[in-house]
Amino acid sequence: MSVDRVLPTDEGAELVDLMREIAQSELAPRAADAEAAGRFSRDVYRLLGDAGLLGMSYPEEYGGLGQPYEVYLQALEEVAAAWMAVGVGVSVHTMTCYAMSRYGTEEQRRTYLPEMIGGRLLGGYALSEAQAGSDITSMTTRAKSGADGYALHGAKAWITNGGEADFYTTFARTGPDRTYGISCFHVTAGAPGLTFGEPEHKMGLTSSPTTAMYLDAVALDAEARIGAEGEGMRIALSALDSGRLGIAACATGLAQAALDAAVAYAKEREQFGSAIAEFQGIQFLLAEMAAAVDTARATYLMAARKRDAGRPFTRDAAVAKLIATDTAMKVTTDAVQVFGGYGYTRDFPVERYMREAKVTQIFEGTNQIQRLVIARQLLR
Amino acid sequence: MSVDRVLPTDEGAELVDLMREIAQSELAPRAADAEAAGRFSRDVYRLLGDAGLLGMSYPEEYGGLGQPYEVYLQALEEVAAAWMAVGVGVSVHTMTCYAMSRYGTEEQRRTYLPEMIGGRLLGGYALSEAQAGSDITSMTTRAKSGADGYALHGAKAWITNGGEADFYTTFARTGPDRTYGISCFHVTAGAPGLTFGEPEHKMGLTSSPTTAMYLDAVALDAEARIGAEGEGMRIALSALDSGRLGIAACATGLAQAALDAAVAYAKEREQFGSAIAEFQGIQFLLAEMAAAVDTARATYLMAARKRDAGRPFTRDAAVAKLIATDTAMKVTTDAVQVFGGYGYTRDFPVERYMREAKVTQIFEGTNQIQRLVIARQLLR
Amino acid sequence: MSVDRVLPTDEGAELVDLMREIAQSELAPRAADAEAAGRFSRDVYRLLGDAGLLGMSYPEEYGGLGQPYEVYLQALEEVAAAWMAVGVGVSVHTMTCYAMSRYGTEEQRRTYLPEMIGGRLLGGYALSEAQAGSDITSMTTRAKSGADGYALHGAKAWITNGGEADFYTTFARTGPDRTYGISCFHVTAGAPGLTFGEPEHKMGLTSSPTTAMYLDAVALDAEARIGAEGEGMRIALSALDSGRLGIAACATGLAQAALDAAVAYAKEREQFGSAIAEFQGIQFLLAEMAAAVDTARATYLMAARKRDAGRPFTRDAAVAKLIATDTAMKVTTDAVQVFGGYGYTRDFPVERYMREAKVTQIFEGTNQIQRLVIARQLLR
Amino acid sequence: MSVDRVLPTDEGAELVDLMREIAQSELAPRAADAEAAGRFSRDVYRLLGDAGLLGMSYPEEYGGLGQPYEVYLQALEEVAAAWMAVGVGVSVHTMTCYAMSRYGTEEQRRTYLPEMIGGRLLGGYALSEAQAGSDITSMTTRAKSGADGYALHGAKAWITNGGEADFYTTFARTGPDRTYGISCFHVTAGAPGLTFGEPEHKMGLTSSPTTAMYLDAVALDAEARIGAEGEGMRIALSALDSGRLGIAACATGLAQAALDAAVAYAKEREQFGSAIAEFQGIQFLLAEMAAAVDTARATYLMAARKRDAGRPFTRDAAVAKLIATDTAMKVTTDAVQVFGGYGYTRDFPVERYMREAKVTQIFEGTNQIQRLVIARQLLR
Repeated sequence: MSVDRVLPTDEGAELVDLMREIAQSELAPRAADAEAAGRFSRDVYRLLGDAGLLGMSYPEEYGGLGQPYEVYLQALEEVAAAWMAVGVGVSVHTMTCYAMSRYGTEEQRRTYLPEMIGGRLLGGYALSEAQAGSDITSMTTRAKSGADGYALHGAKAWITNGGEADFYTTFARTGPDRTYGISCFHVTAGAPGLTFGEPEHKMGLTSSPTTAMYLDAVALDAEARIGAEGEGMRIALSALDSGRLGIAACATGLAQAALDAAVAYAKEREQFGSAIAEFQGIQFLLAEMAAAVDTARATYLMAARKRDAGRPFTRDAAVAKLIATDTAMKVTTDAVQVFGGYGYTRDFPVERYMREAKVTQIFEGTNQIQRLVIARQLLR
Repeated sequence: MSVDRVLPTDEGAELVDLMREIAQSELAPRAADAEAAGRFSRDVYRLLGDAGLLGMSYPEEYGGLGQPYEVYLQALEEVAAAWMAVGVGVSVHTMTCYAMSRYGTEEQRRTYLPEMIGGRLLGGYALSEAQAGSDITSMTTRAKSGADGYALHGAKAWITNGGEADFYTTFARTGPDRTYGISCFHVTAGAPGLTFGEPEHKMGLTSSPTTAMYLDAVALDAEARIGAEGEGMRIALSALDSGRLGIAACATGLAQAALDAAVAYAKEREQFGSAIAEFQGIQFLLAEMAAAVDTARATYLMAARKRDAGRPFTRDAAVAKLIATDTAMKVTTDAVQVFGGYGYTRDFPVERYMREAKVTQIFEGTNQIQRLVIARQLLR
Repeated sequence: MSVDRVLPTDEGAELVDLMREIAQSELAPRAADAEAAGRFSRDVYRLLGDAGLLGMSYPEEYGGLGQPYEVYLQALEEVAAAWMAVGVGVSVHTMTCYAMSRYGTEEQRRTYLPEMIGGRLLGGYALSEAQAGSDITSMTTRAKSGADGYALHGAKAWITNGGEADFYTTFARTGPDRTYGISCFHVTAGAPGLTFGEPEHKMGLTSSPTTAMYLDAVALDAEARIGAEGEGMRIALSALDSGRLGIAACATGLAQAALDAAVAYAKEREQFGSAIAEFQGIQFLLAEMAAAVDTARATYLMAARKRDAGRPFTRDAAVAKLIATDTAMKVTTDAVQVFGGYGYTRDFPVERYMREAKVTQIFEGTNQIQRLVIARQLLR
Repeated sequence: MSVDRVLPTDEGAELVDLMREIAQSELAPRAADAEAAGRFSRDVYRLLGDAGLLGMSYPEEYGGLGQPYEVYLQALEEVAAAWMAVGVGVSVHTMTCYAMSRYGTEEQRRTYLPEMIGGRLLGGYALSEAQAGSDITSMTTRAKSGADGYALHGAKAWITNGGEADFYTTFARTGPDRTYGISCFHVTAGAPGLTFGEPEHKMGLTSSPTTAMYLDAVALDAEARIGAEGEGMRIALSALDSGRLGIAACATGLAQAALDAAVAYAKEREQFGSAIAEFQGIQFLLAEMAAAVDTARATYLMAARKRDAGRPFTRDAAVAKLIATDTAMKVTTDAVQVFGGYGYTRDFPVERYMREAKVTQIFEGTNQIQRLVIARQLLR
């Protein structure tokens, strides 16, 4: 069932349609097996890079398509609806592109961005630490400045695609100030001293490895720094605003997939002599699920429109992340319910959707942090 | 606190700002007294007509401003935030304009529309009956066709501005078919045989009289019929789609007003040595209220954008009505909570907001009916 | 429809049945008019005192019935189901009895308790102040100790039955310590210097006046002090634990009354050719309302059983108050929904129930305070 | 953290304490590994049988302890808190005991019951079929009556402990009447013609195999029938009432375990310079979780008290099942949230709790069916 979407241009509509077709034909058929096996699929990022998804909102001079975020996010939503782990992987990768594009030097941009948005260089995002989750400012990973550049020491945590990415946008402390003592670095996979922990045993998104990352005197040129010294927190926070919209779009796609599955099943499954979709109790449940999905989409698009208009959207991004991920949790849980016992098994994708939904309430800022962000904006 | 709105044009933005200023300066100061006294204020409709609100989305040839619904609804939201009963009155009035504009003859339009959208002719909407609420097709009011036109017999119920409006867009049975035996009529106040019951004793919106309307052989010319014979149901349903967006916008405005009041109070009220806005428990509550209001607005605007693009929006309107009115109920109830005991008294407007919110879940189709509408669209 | 209750003894069951009969025959018929007129009914307290309600859980030697709280609360629930304002009035009055019974001297008890639990002396509870609501310790009303006793100066707020009660259990500061500088006093109506403000214009419970209380050098004998100097906070908190159970019982009764009204209406109201109770959408709504009411009752009874067993029940009372009052708000709001437009008018009691429900989330400690109480117990 | 429980006798309290000790020392340490490996543990049922759990509510003459259901359920709750799959296994097994004890002949009872409640004979419950889930009356498994007894043909579905149990309480059609044409049989594992499908790949409760069961002319003596011919539906429904209480108790235990884990973690995990339990946002979340758990327990105990008093408790059991399982879903999901990213991994049990919670909303009658049951009782 295809979503009736509002897009600003015909070109945007065609791009989203194209991405949907690719997602349904190339990604969806592979998702269940890869998730069951916990197998990372590097090739899909190249595929999506070639198709233009990764660079959709980036300037054409770097190989992008120069589309509004409103378009990109709906394309991303279609990818996540087909394969959530890939949607999330793209969203994380895009945060690395964002940091590079917005805070990198022109030379850095020319060097890295085309490969990054082409999917030939896949990025990881190394911000969190075991003791610095919601509270980024307590990070202890340290970049010691020397004659030739920096030496990074420490341990980062919760790295999406850890050990599989080609580079890691890494935040480390260059000074003692909690907020202004953090800088951002481009760390290449394979750098001496860079190692990764075992993948976490996660409830879902099992095809995407999440690992610790250890930095033991990883030597970097001064050119590896993105932005000014001490600008790391600002980069992290502004990347997070955009990243939250990515997660909101992914969560909406996941919820839409769960809704579609539930509607299809309800029309087919018979009990008491008719399809269960004939019963008002199920109809109301499906209607509430649909209302929630439509609402989540409208909310992230409102934030995207503000971003596209160059206006502040921190509150809007936090609202979108909060609403869309709570929606994903609720709608996927209810989708399992519509399937009854069958929904609790791997014979249908909804149990996986539910397992995948939970983490969206946690990463890119827990939904408790989103509430704090909203409150701060509200009470200014 | 002014809302950071997305509008399609600068002109649209200016119109919404203008309407906000009028609403805050002319309406807001009068609301509490008029509601406490249960006093209808006919003049505000002329004021709003002159200011362009009533005709905002109608063609310039009839005196309208030719703006997208996306603009009109946000202007209406500002009115409702200042005085809910007036917002609702405008929304109902606009349904009469819609029926006339879309289904009337060119002559009818030229005769009535300029006066209607100028606020010089105020409309009532006579669809429901005591036994025909959610189930419109069981209406029994009858329009007997004769040589000179029609004679209407029966009783309508729940007429907003009953006894105060200048005309009533009235639905009556012209044939036995439950669905296709209903027609629509323009009934002028003062017509012989037309009388009104006592205003209902309502929990809220007390400044706006809601009455029964009795038709005892009310004689109408054939020209008083809007649309073809039997087309009434279609008119009613399509007016409802737009009307639901109006209610969604009003409910959002009401919720925004409640949020604004709660935020202001929380910053000022001290307990345990600091403003209660400093406590995370209150911050989270306010953040959830804000997220709900933003979401409601995004949702009705998504529906409006589809309407403006000439696309089907029945499901979207039902979703918007469901979400925005549930939001209004929740947010106003929570706003009273933020005020504590003070919120339970007439010293602050939030208790009134809460009483006003409840009816939005009921009229223009109960939220149970909205779920049915959504399910029907979903399961096609 | 009578509730299938579990009671510890046949005597208890008979007492609850009796109270239900009195409530339905003597109170219920008077409630709507008295609430609409905002008319206090002093006589019902004497009636309920004579019937044994007020002293139900007090020792027989003071004229009580010596019943477990489990019995008393269910009797109180029946009263609140018939007339909420009276239920609340009883609950407040019982807090004054509790303070006297548990902390008074034997002489105080003999002097006052029989009259209090007989309903011949009606009590008010003067704890809150305008700036000291959730934060009791910031109270400023002062009891200056002198040769002959005390002189009370200050202003209390939110006094239920203010100006109508015969005495006021009044908390005032006897020392500077925020917590241990508060004492409790028995202040008789008519004492020189004791005056009351105008009744608040409340959203509901309009038959029960809520006023400010002004103390201008109100002179008291030393014997008017209840408990030791500085013991006031302890008295207040322990009375609150019991008072919260009273409110939980009242809220449950109110929700039960709303449910009963909704069920009766749903069986009778026809739409689409059958009673709306035949539609699964309404059935599910009613079932959820019923589940919530049953749950609220079970929860306050669990707390009562702990109280009756002499075990700590602070957490349980807070849980019961939180759950039962949230239930009352939700169930009464949904009951209006079941009635549709009719529910929004004074033709049926459900709109009043909804207005009455709101304050239960606020008084005897807002539901935010209940969460704090629960968390404190949980995290010890 | 041990729950402060209300129990009717000291003996009951000691039994629950004992069961808690056994559960914590013998079951809890084994749960995570067995669930990760999907390994059934037959021996724990013998252990629990020896300890008296399985026969706790059965008469002493059959080896039971003759305790009220109020005691048994709290003991079961403790088992489920330690190892949910075992709690559920016990609850299912108890349904087979119930059918035998209440509807079996004295000879059947003497033959089977002591072994069953001793845990030496483990039971499965074969009621559902692939096309007969919520709608039991559409079952097609057939028991053909012959000279020597019955021959059973058909396929049952969703058999807890399928292939591992020693016998299966099996429902099959002995006549055409949808309701009165169903009978109940005791089918021994190993009977010729009795085979089982592969275990379902479930989201949780992975240590407990759930399989299809195939009956290919399974021959039974007439003595294998439990109850009269045609009495099967009555047996099934009355066993379900008790079974729902078992599931409610298990779901409460699971929620309690999740709450305990979250509280412990919140006291220990530091962010922003203090334990996250110090933040009001987390405190409120924990308080709401605690309130929900207390409420679930109070609700199933209310139902149990009615059952113990010999009164109808169908509605109460449905309410308890609905509330407790929704609570388990909500509280376990929130517990993961308190743990943040760590909660999403197998390093902590809360992700497993969440996966286990979901099925409780589905089995022993989906929560949609519970709403229908409640509505039916309410609207009589």
